[in-house]
Amino acid sequence: MATIPYKIYLSEEELPQAWYNVRADMKVKPAPLLNPATGAPMTEDDLSAVFCRELARQELDNDTPYIEIPREIRDFYKMYRPSPLVRAYCLEQKLDTPAKIYYKFEGNNTSGSHKLNSAIAQAYYAKQQGLRGVTTETGAGQWGTALSMACAYLGLDLHVFMVKCSYEQKPFRREVMRTYGASVTPSPSPTTAIGRDILARFPDTVGSLGCAISEAVEDAVSHEGYRYVLGSVLNQVLLHQSVIGLETQAALDKYGVKPDMIIGCAGGGSNLGGLIAPFVGQMLRGEAQYDIVAVEPASCPSLTRGKFAYDFCDTGKICPAAKMYTLGSGFMPSPSHAGGLRYHGMSPIVSQLYHDGYLRAVSVEQTKVFEAATFFARCEGILPAPESSHAIRVAMDEAIRCRETGEAKTIVLGLTGTGYFDMYAYGAFNDGTMSDHIPTDDDIARGLANLPHLGE
Amino acid sequence: MATIPYKIYLSEEELPQAWYNVRADMKVKPAPLLNPATGAPMTEDDLSAVFCRELARQELDNDTPYIEIPREIRDFYKMYRPSPLVRAYCLEQKLDTPAKIYYKFEGNNTSGSHKLNSAIAQAYYAKQQGLRGVTTETGAGQWGTALSMACAYLGLDLHVFMVKCSYEQKPFRREVMRTYGASVTPSPSPTTAIGRDILARFPDTVGSLGCAISEAVEDAVSHEGYRYVLGSVLNQVLLHQSVIGLETQAALDKYGVKPDMIIGCAGGGSNLGGLIAPFVGQMLRGEAQYDIVAVEPASCPSLTRGKFAYDFCDTGKICPAAKMYTLGSGFMPSPSHAGGLRYHGMSPIVSQLYHDGYLRAVSVEQTKVFEAATFFARCEGILPAPESSHAIRVAMDEAIRCRETGEAKTIVLGLTGTGYFDMYAYGAFNDGTMSDHIPTDDDIARGLANLPHLGE
Repeated sequence: MATIPYKIYLSEEELPQAWYNVRADMKVKPAPLLNPATGAPMTEDDLSAVFCRELARQELDNDTPYIEIPREIRDFYKMYRPSPLVRAYCLEQKLDTPAKIYYKFEGNNTSGSHKLNSAIAQAYYAKQQGLRGVTTETGAGQWGTALSMACAYLGLDLHVFMVKCSYEQKPFRREVMRTYGASVTPSPSPTTAIGRDILARFPDTVGSLGCAISEAVEDAVSHEGYRYVLGSVLNQVLLHQSVIGLETQAALDKYGVKPDMIIGCAGGGSNLGGLIAPFVGQMLRGEAQYDIVAVEPASCPSLTRGKFAYDFCDTGKICPAAKMYTLGSGFMPSPSHAGGLRYHGMSPIVSQLYHDGYLRAVSVEQTKVFEAATFFARCEGILPAPESSHAIRVAMDEAIRCRETGEAKTIVLGLTGTGYFDMYAYGAFNDGTMSDHIPTDDDIARGLANLPHLGE
Repeated sequence: MATIPYKIYLSEEELPQAWYNVRADMKVKPAPLLNPATGAPMTEDDLSAVFCRELARQELDNDTPYIEIPREIRDFYKMYRPSPLVRAYCLEQKLDTPAKIYYKFEGNNTSGSHKLNSAIAQAYYAKQQGLRGVTTETGAGQWGTALSMACAYLGLDLHVFMVKCSYEQKPFRREVMRTYGASVTPSPSPTTAIGRDILARFPDTVGSLGCAISEAVEDAVSHEGYRYVLGSVLNQVLLHQSVIGLETQAALDKYGVKPDMIIGCAGGGSNLGGLIAPFVGQMLRGEAQYDIVAVEPASCPSLTRGKFAYDFCDTGKICPAAKMYTLGSGFMPSPSHAGGLRYHGMSPIVSQLYHDGYLRAVSVEQTKVFEAATFFARCEGILPAPESSHAIRVAMDEAIRCRETGEAKTIVLGLTGTGYFDMYAYGAFNDGTMSDHIPTDDDIARGLANLPHLGE
């Protein structure tokens, strides 16, 4: 077997030709999206009022295992993919561990994260359908940045509703989106009925993802030639993100490496779902076993402390409802939480796989996350996004455990992006002023008290 | 001939084995560095009091055409090199030009710029010599970021003196350096005699590169086991940066492409000197002709409006003096200037080549630069550094000219880095509040009034 280089680069020809749809191999399919008013399952026509037609089709397709990636999207992917799978030799050495650590690095494109994989796909289908533009929301800003890049490339209009506290705390993210030609509105805003209603009731609100989603959907359906697009949670997004896992598997296979443990951070589940898809597929087909770990922030612990139930995806309750692990659509992580991954729910696919025992979940506190991020940066050069650093933390802990036990485990982690726009949080960590916040049992119970009675 | 892909990636095996030392082919060598007090040429021993021994040797070597890149540096280079040479198909299309535009992209490493090419080399030689650490200054922050990454990798201490206005306006750059373990001090500072003197005389100063250099040198020579390192201007830096030009040449040769025009931005000259070195080498040996263009900001026009003379490299006048195009060591660009490239002088190699007619220089105003940067970002996806965007502006102007004349010129430009830490300036441009500033003839004359009488 050849020596394993620092970076395993697949060639352009090895870029996957098709996305992998893990739903085709799932015995228990993710529960259908429901109309939040009637409780009826959403049809393709229902969904097409909000989403692009082809994306509505992908959302509902539980059967086709491989869906071809259109040539135009593959050409765009070639500008930054295949992304490198890096052997973290330097990190292993500094940790003095027999474990072998690999990371799949998705930050090496200008948008700085894996979000571009789905952004270009969704923008492409919108363009195909002859739309004028799309609307979306963004929290930490990675999704908005990626989508603004994709829309600029294809000549589509883009309206972004940016959670107000991010809009104010991350003005530079906002400027990147504006530089790419997007219009960016702080949410809640007076430009939508839902925004006006929330502002009237809570004039001092700093906004939330759930509220920004409602505004973006309202904006899309009230403008001719627009549809709404979303950067996580949905089945279609996990489908597009499977390119991460497929490349990871191809790169490992090329060098005959079999991972023991696969670790991803989990907010809405787009990166985790994409990274693990083909590996879970092997598990579902009985071909292999892996220890798959979802890592979430202790301040927003949907998998580890939430409930598996139907819930609203947005504050305005105008989006389809999804069966997922949720903390309740009114749950808001503490303002001291800096590291993204602040959605109240979780991808229905990831939720179902977790419920069925194909992965486990752990939560970590943010000061421990930034400690790992800083250690990693100094070893591996890359300044990781706080989100990604959740996975780094757990990988490092396992590698340290291996040092004690002598196990030579092979660990793969998803390094979803870079932290250039999170230096405010890094600064707080460097200054020792960062704090942790874990919701009390009462906080959790309050969030779960108002789940809708859907699908029961 | 094969179709030219969007990105030409050389393989790891095609990474240059040696740096190219253009001085070996220059008929008129760059003038020697002089002791600013005595006017005597600096010897290797003189320079070794301030610089690492091997770097002092490289600084004075005007004869060896190729200097081998140590294996350890090559291994580090492999983490992000060879960097891609990108055919700007999308930009060409949007400009509707018959010109063919290529850019050598140096921003695809975590430090975000070409500065890492020399940072790792200088840190390596410091480590080899058994030093504890190094000191440096940084203005816009790219050099400090790159060096902090290199020092973290090698386990060297790093003290950075950061020009005070940058320290305050770019707190996130500072945090990146701190995250990599560097100590960062705003300059002028009370930690050095020179800093204390300047603070006493100008308590409200926002600092300058020349002052920060003085402080970093004083800090190095007054700490056992430390040396000073510099990110531009010096011959050694241009030597290391030749890796950019060598890769560019190899990639073009691979596809049988002969450039007509090679464009680089010019501040201290490190990127430009590195990019053009092997091409100028061909010109010096009579093997080829190119139209080589240095682009500088209209607000800091050392080549287009400065004088070719010996000058001090730093405010404290403790560094060796260099013969270069200079605006005078007291010259400060307007505070409204946002785009880097604010050093009063220019690399002695670039200066000599310019003086001897091997390249021409143009200056551009910053609103035109950001207009080009924004246009480029929307076409090519990459958010360029303001510095790099000076070269983009001139390349776009030439491509537009080609649209009129029908010429199918081949243009190569150096895209030195990304602008993630320059969103404050992008924001000013997006808001329409950015202004231009061109020094008056009186401003220029004042700067040139106090040149030293050295080497005359």
